[in-house]
Amino acid sequence: MERGRIICAGLGPGDPDLISVRADRAIRGARHLAYFRKAGQQGQARRIVQGMLAPGVTEYAMEYPVTTEIPFDSPEYNALLAAFYDGWAARLAELARSQEIVVLCEGDPFFYGSFMHLWLRLRDLVPVEIIPGIPGMAGCWTASGTPITWGDDVMTVLMGTLPEAELARHMRRADALVVMKTGRNLPKVRRALAAAGRLDQAWLVERGTMPGQRIARLVDTEDADCPYFALVLVHGQGRRPQSAEAAE
Amino acid sequence: MERGRIICAGLGPGDPDLISVRADRAIRGARHLAYFRKAGQQGQARRIVQGMLAPGVTEYAMEYPVTTEIPFDSPEYNALLAAFYDGWAARLAELARSQEIVVLCEGDPFFYGSFMHLWLRLRDLVPVEIIPGIPGMAGCWTASGTPITWGDDVMTVLMGTLPEAELARHMRRADALVVMKTGRNLPKVRRALAAAGRLDQAWLVERGTMPGQRIARLVDTEDADCPYFALVLVHGQGRRPQSAEAAE
Ligand SMILES: C[S@@+](CC[C@H](N)C(=O)[O-])C[C@H]1O[C@@H](n2cnc3c(N)ncnc32)[C@H](O)[C@@H]1O
Ligand SMILES: C[S@@+](CC[C@H](N)C(=O)[O-])C[C@H]1O[C@@H](n2cnc3c(N)ncnc32)[C@H](O)[C@@H]1O
Repeated sequence: MERGRIICAGLGPGDPDLISVRADRAIRGARHLAYFRKAGQQGQARRIVQGMLAPGVTEYAMEYPVTTEIPFDSPEYNALLAAFYDGWAARLAELARSQEIVVLCEGDPFFYGSFMHLWLRLRDLVPVEIIPGIPGMAGCWTASGTPITWGDDVMTVLMGTLPEAELARHMRRADALVVMKTGRNLPKVRRALAAAGRLDQAWLVERGTMPGQRIARLVDTEDADCPYFALVLVHGQGRRPQSAEAAE
Repeated sequence: MERGRIICAGLGPGDPDLISVRADRAIRGARHLAYFRKAGQQGQARRIVQGMLAPGVTEYAMEYPVTTEIPFDSPEYNALLAAFYDGWAARLAELARSQEIVVLCEGDPFFYGSFMHLWLRLRDLVPVEIIPGIPGMAGCWTASGTPITWGDDVMTVLMGTLPEAELARHMRRADALVVMKTGRNLPKVRRALAAAGRLDQAWLVERGTMPGQRIARLVDTEDADCPYFALVLVHGQGRRPQSAEAAE
């Protein structure tokens, strides 16, 4: 019997035109398509591929049993999520005995991607191919209209879920910063940036390259309603060859 | 008169199949195509698009006046590079009065890309569009077969050109590491990783997703002949929902 396999297609930051040629081909050709989403929503991944799917594709919406209702570091959260990933991994592994399944993943799959939890459970059972994608942050700094790093700038990526003091410590040390998972962590991220003396240089990018994109200096924004697809950028200012006039 | 413009197309890590749909379209449709290269070489950017170009395209090979012959932090290096970027910016700005020019850039253009130096000089003269790309590092960690970051791992990106002590300091503080511009800096990068206690976890990825790709534990490699397209990865080990059996 012909064995199937699983292909995880990185979707990039949100604009379907920023999907790689390889992932675009996999998605358009898919007969079985799986993606994560919050229960009761269409989901960002599914929205990105709207209009790209072949007629007759079978869809598997993997709905999170919990998102922000329980603290992410509690034993209950761990147990619920582990069972969720175990269940879908078993189902996809069974299907992948005979079929090719395309799993969607926003941004780049191996960069803080949810698919990694399925990958951990599937990699010894079935062939899994990962197609990298443009990370959301690259879409966001491009949309901000300014390069993120120059010369030998140090860039650090932080999750807004980290403790405030730890955020501030890392924010002091790097030239360029990306803070992901801002959402409800935005007030904390803002305080940490202020403590590190970086608040004035920070930008908030909401829904980078997606419909409803919004880019603003962080100091000009409110904490309320920061969406899940939002991140904070501090652009590096490193070394660059300067012409005589510019260097004066 | 119709004004032209400049489009900088991010090429991704090297495999042409990993170019975005938008950049792929721009490259195939280009009538004027510019790219950087070392004098006397075909150049990585031009190699990636081999076989994609329209007949009759006009090519502009922008050959660096110097690469590693002079220290990058010397006044001479600065002067030579600034004059080189000034000259090409003037030439492209003139051409872009009436024509659309596609400029190639490896990886993601706004992430340590050479094009940024042209962008600085062109942005007030002509319309410039940037198409983001998959950064080389994302192609490399995907090729390594292991996710780079989990949960709330902190990721830091470092340039091998930094002083050894500074490299080591940053290497101690982050969970996941990417060290770019290894090349001739590899012995220094190796010593810094050892000082930070991270050498055993480090991988060297040479020419990720390109012909001649090579992936090895850093401790199993030699310093000699590390190519320009090479980087070091230390994968994060962060939080992940674990099933009861796996957590035991
Ligand atoms: C679980 S992480 C997934 C990251 C994804 N694998 C990637 O490569 O971008 C989700 C976080 O990524 C960030 N993000 C991803 N895409 C974004 C976009 N288009 N605009 C703003 N933030 C984005 C947000 O901070 C969000 O909370
Ligand atoms: C001047 S930086 C340009 C980075 C580029 N804009 C990007 O987004 O990857 C050049 C460095 O990127 C790294 N690099 C880029 N692509 C790579 C690849 N495919 N394999 C290994 N290293 C790569 C190497 O460390 C190289 O020295």
